[in-house]
Amino acid sequence: MSTPTLSSHTDSLGDLRVAHQQLDSISMRELFAADPERFDRFHVEFDGLLYDYSKQRVTQHALNLLLVHAEKRQLREAIGHMFAGDPLNFTEQRSAWHVALRAGDQAPAVVHSVLERMAPIVDALRCGTWRGSTGKPITHVVNLGIGGSDLGPRLVVQALANRHSPIHVDFIAGLDPAEFNGVLANADAEQTLFIISSKSFGTTETLTNARAAMDWLRQALGNNTHLAPHLLAVTNRPKAALALGIPAEQCLPLPEWVGGRFSLWSAVGLPIACAIGMEGFTQLLAGANSVDRHFANAPLAQNIPVLMGLFGWWNVFALRATTHAILPYSYRLRELTAHLQQLEMESNGKSVDRAGKKVDYLTAPVMWGGAEPMGQHAFHQLLYQGTRTTPLDFILIAGGDDPRQCTLFENGLAQSAALMMGKTLDEAHAELLSTGHSAEEAKRLAPHLVCRGNQPSSTLLLPDLTPYSVGQLLALYEHKVYVQGVLWNINSFDQYGVEFGKQMANKLADQHDGPTDPSLDGSTCGLLRARRRMRGES
Amino acid sequence: MSTPTLSSHTDSLGDLRVAHQQLDSISMRELFAADPERFDRFHVEFDGLLYDYSKQRVTQHALNLLLVHAEKRQLREAIGHMFAGDPLNFTEQRSAWHVALRAGDQAPAVVHSVLERMAPIVDALRCGTWRGSTGKPITHVVNLGIGGSDLGPRLVVQALANRHSPIHVDFIAGLDPAEFNGVLANADAEQTLFIISSKSFGTTETLTNARAAMDWLRQALGNNTHLAPHLLAVTNRPKAALALGIPAEQCLPLPEWVGGRFSLWSAVGLPIACAIGMEGFTQLLAGANSVDRHFANAPLAQNIPVLMGLFGWWNVFALRATTHAILPYSYRLRELTAHLQQLEMESNGKSVDRAGKKVDYLTAPVMWGGAEPMGQHAFHQLLYQGTRTTPLDFILIAGGDDPRQCTLFENGLAQSAALMMGKTLDEAHAELLSTGHSAEEAKRLAPHLVCRGNQPSSTLLLPDLTPYSVGQLLALYEHKVYVQGVLWNINSFDQYGVEFGKQMANKLADQHDGPTDPSLDGSTCGLLRARRRMRGES
Repeated sequence: MSTPTLSSHTDSLGDLRVAHQQLDSISMRELFAADPERFDRFHVEFDGLLYDYSKQRVTQHALNLLLVHAEKRQLREAIGHMFAGDPLNFTEQRSAWHVALRAGDQAPAVVHSVLERMAPIVDALRCGTWRGSTGKPITHVVNLGIGGSDLGPRLVVQALANRHSPIHVDFIAGLDPAEFNGVLANADAEQTLFIISSKSFGTTETLTNARAAMDWLRQALGNNTHLAPHLLAVTNRPKAALALGIPAEQCLPLPEWVGGRFSLWSAVGLPIACAIGMEGFTQLLAGANSVDRHFANAPLAQNIPVLMGLFGWWNVFALRATTHAILPYSYRLRELTAHLQQLEMESNGKSVDRAGKKVDYLTAPVMWGGAEPMGQHAFHQLLYQGTRTTPLDFILIAGGDDPRQCTLFENGLAQSAALMMGKTLDEAHAELLSTGHSAEEAKRLAPHLVCRGNQPSSTLLLPDLTPYSVGQLLALYEHKVYVQGVLWNINSFDQYGVEFGKQMANKLADQHDGPTDPSLDGSTCGLLRARRRMRGES
Repeated sequence: MSTPTLSSHTDSLGDLRVAHQQLDSISMRELFAADPERFDRFHVEFDGLLYDYSKQRVTQHALNLLLVHAEKRQLREAIGHMFAGDPLNFTEQRSAWHVALRAGDQAPAVVHSVLERMAPIVDALRCGTWRGSTGKPITHVVNLGIGGSDLGPRLVVQALANRHSPIHVDFIAGLDPAEFNGVLANADAEQTLFIISSKSFGTTETLTNARAAMDWLRQALGNNTHLAPHLLAVTNRPKAALALGIPAEQCLPLPEWVGGRFSLWSAVGLPIACAIGMEGFTQLLAGANSVDRHFANAPLAQNIPVLMGLFGWWNVFALRATTHAILPYSYRLRELTAHLQQLEMESNGKSVDRAGKKVDYLTAPVMWGGAEPMGQHAFHQLLYQGTRTTPLDFILIAGGDDPRQCTLFENGLAQSAALMMGKTLDEAHAELLSTGHSAEEAKRLAPHLVCRGNQPSSTLLLPDLTPYSVGQLLALYEHKVYVQGVLWNINSFDQYGVEFGKQMANKLADQHDGPTDPSLDGSTCGLLRARRRMRGES
């Protein structure tokens, strides 16, 4: 693959800078007023869903320049490389070929063979023919995994699980015994099965939890119990799983070319299949595959993940945005933010370009947000009246027969409108007068009611939350993140920063009796000693 | 109260700017190397806890200037005004007197009278003498509230609830039926009681959930059941609660001078008291009161919330920080981020000063984060290798007998150290050579392993998670937010932006049959129509 440097794109960047300067003084209010067709031109419908970008701070001219820039950055070629399974992750010499996991008939044989191994396991669990060591059927599956082996599956299970499912699925990710004990507080060991999910099968948190789970099973079922019926593993290192006592036929493989944050479509998605069945899991893959084909084939100007990535890039480049908020108006999507935090910040939280040169531009923003309407009663204040430009993604659901779902949709729509429109000083003043304030009071208070408006947002309108539409949604964001990585000219698929954190944690792991490593800084030593004092150990 | 303008502080701001410029090229690594006493001088211990700010990007000189600036901004006087119950919230002509709620013997009579009304209710619920309409004891309390009536109590209950409590406490905040149905999936109506918590008793979400809860009770218990034994209210408008059928003696008052985001110490904390008992609730108040007295009396240089606020302000002023991450290494504190999001962003997400003048400086950052160690496997990548300066608060717990709690502590300490130290190109290069890479490979890969370091952080080390220490923790952050508001010269206690969002939601509430309001923008109209099409309604 070619590695173009940014200098060859000075022209398109310069044009974009000029376009931004022209736009900077124009409010979106004015853009909408000047162009009654703005929504019609600035949205895309695809396969049942709708992407509205009319509330991004762009004109047709700026968008055209963005598309030119994408061409110059060889985005089309980059998309081709992804689908070809080229080694995009060049530092670690691997492909990032997660699209192959959901390619249906087009998928490589290894993908089919894993799905063929998953199906009978999932079916046996859901039909009750898979029995625990005392002969009872399994009704409770607990996934032990962290990062990509947790966030994606957790999100999808919460989005789609139905309480009539024969299998209830829970997740344990971290090290705090409060989490482990909380999840297992009312669990029946005879009917509980653990999935140990770790690509390396060496992740401290996951292995610690696996050992704790085995102790918990032994304590409940007796020391001589055969634990294997209560354990499954998903890993790229089956020997390590075998060493822990998990039979080879209960260990599902994870190809080397699947990165953790893109792995929910692989056997890492086993908890999803347990919760919604193989048919549901297949629909999830089909939704993602539909978006994959759209990403591969649609013209850039009609290509939703390309547009999402272009605006993500534009908001950082032109508006100097430092954060990006994800606002799903659905309780079922309450873990979406955490998943997208990993997806975007781990992929594009980088500072060197593909050639290893330190970049002189900003890359990934901080992703944050949360399930709505809770934020409306809390952090939205800063979006309305703070000093920060904050790009937003509204995710709205069209369906649902309950009037509360209608209110929820209207709430989201209202916030996206209000954050675009804002409230001017004149409007604030008029409002205060109309609600009985004196002229003097109205004058004094009006500035405190002004809302900035002009916050850039996109809206994704999904017909309903189904396995298919959730598959679409997550694939859209995966590709958006890749598009941004191409525009920033970085490797979106390694994570050496996360590795460094693990190194330092290992370095500290034997210092709790007091700091002995002379390379430790004064704060670390001071805190190690303070902890010992607080514990009465020194 | 006087309303100083910023221009009178040009000097201290100018000095701070110079101090920042001098500091900008010096890494914290160098500061630690140059000063073996840095930790000793740059931490404060108070009432069992420790606040370490040695990893903030300051020198003693810069800190001295910050303290001078605080004096010039009349911070001492501002603290005095808070404790005196002065109308700090001058736009709404109210006090922000939450410190009175935890003033113990010094508290006003109204506070004692509410606590005296809470106690027998809580005791009756926890002793099982409070009976539902069919005569069974209540074992399940569900809080219906949103924003301040949800986040604080939810956080504290999750931090402190013990599974041996006679009362299990849940929370429903939003509008999605999936949330309501999920929480009540396995609930027994005969033994369930709802707390309807809304200062105005007019909050759409809470009232909608209250009506749904009453329907749910009627459906389970029969249409003619007396529902009152299953309902409590907390509100400033008792008449509205009475109109919904809640007897006056089951309606606890909320004084006008308690803002939603500061209300967990009032009767809004009823779910906390149900979960941990009145004794625990009293300890929570005592912990907060201890910090209040510290905030009111300690010299600024030894005053933890003052220092927290000064560094919050400094990181925005000098480092242009746009976000601030909260990283509690405790699963029990997993909702802390959401609570602090509201506390800080709703309080200080403002753009006009106290005189109504648009500010020409940045105010509150976006608060984000989450329970660790999950982030280490996800978003920490951006902290290590991204392009954004991100101030961080590490919250670590010293106690605990489980080795996993020790690992958790070490994990947090390791990240704070690694994010300060970073990894240089030389270190990356040496590491690659030592792990068997060729000279050529090491040279090519080393830039991809470099970690920026120098991320500013504070560490709060708590001895243990108890009602008292959680009370301390939350009061520290409340006062920190106030300190920043004083430094930014804004009103931290109104929330007109949130009100605007509610106005717009009301405006849209009758547009679902198609847009009819001519003032609506093209995107809103387009999305309303698209939803109808997706639903097959047009």
